[in-house]
Amino acid sequence: MTGDKSFVLKGDICYSEDRNLLRTVEQGYLVCLEGKSEGVFKELPEQFVNLPLTDCGDQMIIPGLIDLHIHAPQFSFRGLHMDLELLDWLNTNTFPEEARYKDLDYAKKAYQIFADAMKKSGTTRACIFATIHGPATEVLMDIMEETGLKTMVGKVNMDRNSPEYYCENSAAESARDTEAWLEHVMLKYTNVSPILTPRFIPSCTDELMERLSGIQKKYRIPVQSHLSENLSEVEWVKGLCPASRFYGDAYDQFGMFGGKVKTVMAHCVYSSKTEIGLMKERGVFIAHCPQSNINLASGVAPVRTYLEQEMNIGLGTDVAGGSGESIFRAMVDAISASKLRWRLLDESLKPVTVEEAFYMGTLGGGAFFGKVGSFLKGYEFDALILDDSSLPHPQALSLKERLERFIYLSDDRHIKGKFTEGSRIF
Amino acid sequence: MTGDKSFVLKGDICYSEDRNLLRTVEQGYLVCLEGKSEGVFKELPEQFVNLPLTDCGDQMIIPGLIDLHIHAPQFSFRGLHMDLELLDWLNTNTFPEEARYKDLDYAKKAYQIFADAMKKSGTTRACIFATIHGPATEVLMDIMEETGLKTMVGKVNMDRNSPEYYCENSAAESARDTEAWLEHVMLKYTNVSPILTPRFIPSCTDELMERLSGIQKKYRIPVQSHLSENLSEVEWVKGLCPASRFYGDAYDQFGMFGGKVKTVMAHCVYSSKTEIGLMKERGVFIAHCPQSNINLASGVAPVRTYLEQEMNIGLGTDVAGGSGESIFRAMVDAISASKLRWRLLDESLKPVTVEEAFYMGTLGGGAFFGKVGSFLKGYEFDALILDDSSLPHPQALSLKERLERFIYLSDDRHIKGKFTEGSRIF
Repeated sequence: MTGDKSFVLKGDICYSEDRNLLRTVEQGYLVCLEGKSEGVFKELPEQFVNLPLTDCGDQMIIPGLIDLHIHAPQFSFRGLHMDLELLDWLNTNTFPEEARYKDLDYAKKAYQIFADAMKKSGTTRACIFATIHGPATEVLMDIMEETGLKTMVGKVNMDRNSPEYYCENSAAESARDTEAWLEHVMLKYTNVSPILTPRFIPSCTDELMERLSGIQKKYRIPVQSHLSENLSEVEWVKGLCPASRFYGDAYDQFGMFGGKVKTVMAHCVYSSKTEIGLMKERGVFIAHCPQSNINLASGVAPVRTYLEQEMNIGLGTDVAGGSGESIFRAMVDAISASKLRWRLLDESLKPVTVEEAFYMGTLGGGAFFGKVGSFLKGYEFDALILDDSSLPHPQALSLKERLERFIYLSDDRHIKGKFTEGSRIF
Repeated sequence: MTGDKSFVLKGDICYSEDRNLLRTVEQGYLVCLEGKSEGVFKELPEQFVNLPLTDCGDQMIIPGLIDLHIHAPQFSFRGLHMDLELLDWLNTNTFPEEARYKDLDYAKKAYQIFADAMKKSGTTRACIFATIHGPATEVLMDIMEETGLKTMVGKVNMDRNSPEYYCENSAAESARDTEAWLEHVMLKYTNVSPILTPRFIPSCTDELMERLSGIQKKYRIPVQSHLSENLSEVEWVKGLCPASRFYGDAYDQFGMFGGKVKTVMAHCVYSSKTEIGLMKERGVFIAHCPQSNINLASGVAPVRTYLEQEMNIGLGTDVAGGSGESIFRAMVDAISASKLRWRLLDESLKPVTVEEAFYMGTLGGGAFFGKVGSFLKGYEFDALILDDSSLPHPQALSLKERLERFIYLSDDRHIKGKFTEGSRIF
């Protein structure tokens, strides 16, 4: 018994088996059975010969890309006004724009632009921040549902240190609105699910964190937030939370820092040894957002350390700290940033390789969603079909070289097909 | 009396008046008279009302972009193998590929791919390195002539410290081949002109430099080379040229470092105070190639210093140290690299602004070609027509914001028209 979600793709296949091993199979067979990968084969096994087969020719087939950190309402001002550091940038550019999403007409218009771009991109799964507005967050979820992408979307919580026009009135109100939003959306979608989203410690009182912790326990949903992004922010948190041993501890004391609670923290540029130790122990996911960390002059996260310690790490675009939604570009930026960190700051931490960047953008981030981001047997069938024929070259190239070049040179024109869980999106 | 090269473009016009002043004129009139700009006007002056007018609607019109440093034969391996530093990268990746251009069939195929990409890009003028092969360099010049771009192309000189398969046999042979090439190409083209191209000091004996100096005096052509790009290279030059006070002095002692000899030097990442002083005194142009300097982990040039001292500076893509031919991307990379330099290395040198990056990619580099890179009266009419309508946004944007966003988000799809000296290329 096989349905629409059982088929074979033939083509030039590339995927990560682990953080160091990139597998490339020229003219291989990738089998999807009921929406899950059965693996990649040089010859098609007998039991699959009756499945419908699509020959992708010389096109490449890779796992879908994972964006562990992106702000949907900031998509409108991507590529603009990045001459400030984080805290000033939030007050000057970000909060005024996010406040506009109280207007549902504006939210619909803006979020549709975001969703259209995400659909065309290489991203199949994403962790998305919305705004403090429950109804507008539901609008975003409705629109994302239609794309077929598998996303987690969070209504943002903020009850302090935020401008009057963009701040929830109390912890109680913030919690009440969050529960109301969850009651609306919890079982509403096939492709979209909610994620708890305290903006970051400076925006959330202890009372709010306590209430969110309760909501987390009640609804058993994952958590996303920001951690140790910028030097002034880290100093500020020290002042705000004198009882916390380090920034991450301020989440941990409310039970929202990994362990049984699936947690992704964006940035981790300035995480201390102790913070890193706790993240590793608790399996906290790191969303490495190199372009945002460059654009806002935050710095460069010690990715080599995180990889060597075999921590959970994936990539984030962090639009609008990052200027675009491309995770291919995030792979390039992860390599580039690590080279300058090595050259200018610390030659003990070797630059990130192409294989490692590809791993982070697929399997590394995919693990946040379950068995996602590879073509190993049993993984969710999220895939991209890539056409590099319009990027001509005079010499012969290996499949691995073609993939490397694609990461550096491609744009959305070169993505010819996209699947999530065995369903074709385009 | 007006010919084809006299016309008016109406649209949203942006251009640099100097390194700090970006002028934006919404729905302005840009007048081209006999291939030169007459300036930009809010209302069309009476004397131009009879010129043919093209209404570009809401499209933006900006000066053509200038690439002060690009290697045509390396275009084939852009986006590949950037996991080595400069000297190893040259020996492992670059020299083997450049050696293939001895084969004119390969050269034709590869250079056509390069030229097609350059034609579609935002670049209207470029300083281009070829290989050591005179005939293949002429093939490149023939192909570039057809694009309509205004380019300077150099046959490379190398007679030492290069692999046997890619090294000229003697200074005499190198000079003889260079003269033979110059005799062929000197007056052959409308759009292309030759530029003297000693690869860099490590590749050129004193005898070769002496002979090239003689050739320069005879043909009165400009000079391009590399300077202070990488730490190992700078150390190597010290050993190779004990008589030189600094790297640039090794060019200067042969009269190829600015002054009466128009000179552009790529990189200048590690230029000493004395070297910077001489560059300024002699008006040597700096080709700032931020992406290459990141990809090869060279470092980041002190661009703020060069801008503050009002030195001649423009941008280079340095393909294949850089992975693509886009000068818009080079503008972004100049800003990005300067932010990490500021954050990680030296907070006394402020990051580059959007206005400054745009200046370097247009007027700053354009000065190497004469009155080029602006729409001020008397400048060569090199222009681009840019369409950002396929980059939707929910909010109103100023023209300056649209330009900034275009620099970050656009690709070749968004370039709808291109002119050099008043001739339309597409």
